[in-house]
Amino acid sequence: MAHARAMLDTHPREFGFPAEDLAAAIEACFDCAQTCTACADACLAEEDVESLRRCITSDLNCSDICVATGRVLSRQTDYDALITQRALESCIRACVACAEECERHAEHHRHCAVCAEACRACAAACSELLDDEVEEELSALQGG
Amino acid sequence: MAHARAMLDTHPREFGFPAEDLAAAIEACFDCAQTCTACADACLAEEDVESLRRCITSDLNCSDICVATGRVLSRQTDYDALITQRALESCIRACVACAEECERHAEHHRHCAVCAEACRACAAACSELLDDEVEEELSALQGG
Amino acid sequence: MAHARAMLDTHPREFGFPAEDLAAAIEACFDCAQTCTACADACLAEEDVESLRRCITSDLNCSDICVATGRVLSRQTDYDALITQRALESCIRACVACAEECERHAEHHRHCAVCAEACRACAAACSELLDDEVEEELSALQGG
Amino acid sequence: MAHARAMLDTHPREFGFPAEDLAAAIEACFDCAQTCTACADACLAEEDVESLRRCITSDLNCSDICVATGRVLSRQTDYDALITQRALESCIRACVACAEECERHAEHHRHCAVCAEACRACAAACSELLDDEVEEELSALQGG
Repeated sequence: MAHARAMLDTHPREFGFPAEDLAAAIEACFDCAQTCTACADACLAEEDVESLRRCITSDLNCSDICVATGRVLSRQTDYDALITQRALESCIRACVACAEECERHAEHHRHCAVCAEACRACAAACSELLDDEVEEELSALQGG
Repeated sequence: MAHARAMLDTHPREFGFPAEDLAAAIEACFDCAQTCTACADACLAEEDVESLRRCITSDLNCSDICVATGRVLSRQTDYDALITQRALESCIRACVACAEECERHAEHHRHCAVCAEACRACAAACSELLDDEVEEELSALQGG
Repeated sequence: MAHARAMLDTHPREFGFPAEDLAAAIEACFDCAQTCTACADACLAEEDVESLRRCITSDLNCSDICVATGRVLSRQTDYDALITQRALESCIRACVACAEECERHAEHHRHCAVCAEACRACAAACSELLDDEVEEELSALQGG
Repeated sequence: MAHARAMLDTHPREFGFPAEDLAAAIEACFDCAQTCTACADACLAEEDVESLRRCITSDLNCSDICVATGRVLSRQTDYDALITQRALESCIRACVACAEECERHAEHHRHCAVCAEACRACAAACSELLDDEVEEELSALQGG
């Protein structure tokens, strides 16, 4: 259903990332943003909401950072390597922290298990892109 | 890849919408938010950017309203029918306006054609949900 | 500190709203978005978090809708009257609902009192703009 | 008008930053998010929009990252030092890049001059907070 890849394939400019990796990271960011919003909401409805405070905060932070990162990655006109790198690092940290917190509650709350999965997938897709970027930079340095 | 339906299926509360329709609308909102961000970026890279001003503005407005609506729909704890209705109406309007504008450029710019498709799909999924809500209200009135 | 008015005064185009009302509504939306995020967080930290579920949901919905509305209002290039109207209506509803809920807790939680004030101010500024828009339309109809 | 400081003063928990610095950074993030949205829109309306592509992209990226950072800073319940640090670094980079780009156009476009000012102010407020955080960590290490 997602159109991220189709949008990259019809973009008028070239971009520094393999389209497959870029589309995967963009989709993972938007999916994680949604999943974390839903997990915060589901946690709020649980009887033991007092023990889910940290989980709700992690969810909300992760969702906001994922929306911002997904949008930064969606903009490839006059792309800025350093902003992208910082955004990816920030996103990976938020996703890993949220996944770790969600995993603590995954046995009792299935929504936390689903959310941890979405966070791990997003962290992996963003790490892949960060690796691509470093490789690109290295190869530019070596070619120069 | 999207986890919207899995999150609804593991939510501790009941909700007033059929889960299938609700998941479809949530996913469509987040997909449309991404597609519109990408379309604004692709338009900005086109040679005839002067003739795409309205398209870029529509894209940006639609993307912001879709993120907000997708998140409101993702929150089913202490759900507020009137806020949901207003958010859906606002989203449908933004999607239809953006689809109409994108369709004007669809022949020359394939990203506009893809974006129009995502906007139409989002407007349709939100309209479906708005119908569900009105039916729910009517049935509550008649049952009462 | 806010730059909304300075940005309107340096914008290359004319716009349909009095700059004073428009700047007031834009600033109120961004302020309310921040205040509601902070109120949701403060509620989450309270001992009686179980009784603040509805307040947290209202805060989060209001914050998201205020960001979207504040951004739509900040875009005056190829302005769309109907999108603006729908966004304002949606924002007013979210602000009023959040203010009402916060007021229920205002005696016990001072952050809820502050948040209710920010929500009421935002609803008032958006209503003023909605009135301006209706007057503009009427005067266009009568002039035509 | 902004309520960031009042919200911090009524928050039930202690937090690791001086309230004055924290409130200043939060307000600067939300102000910068608004200003950048408005600058992107004003650039789009300029006759020489072709030469403002990079400026529009920087504005949009900076606005999204500022919203996310302003919200992360607004959440002090179960605060995560590393996420805050990464978000601040990402925000500072986006603000500096946007200020530099806007300054290139500041002579011809006054909105770019205003936006550069808002970006510099936000970068400074976030840097102050990053220094506070590092000092806090050092003092915790030395105290231990």
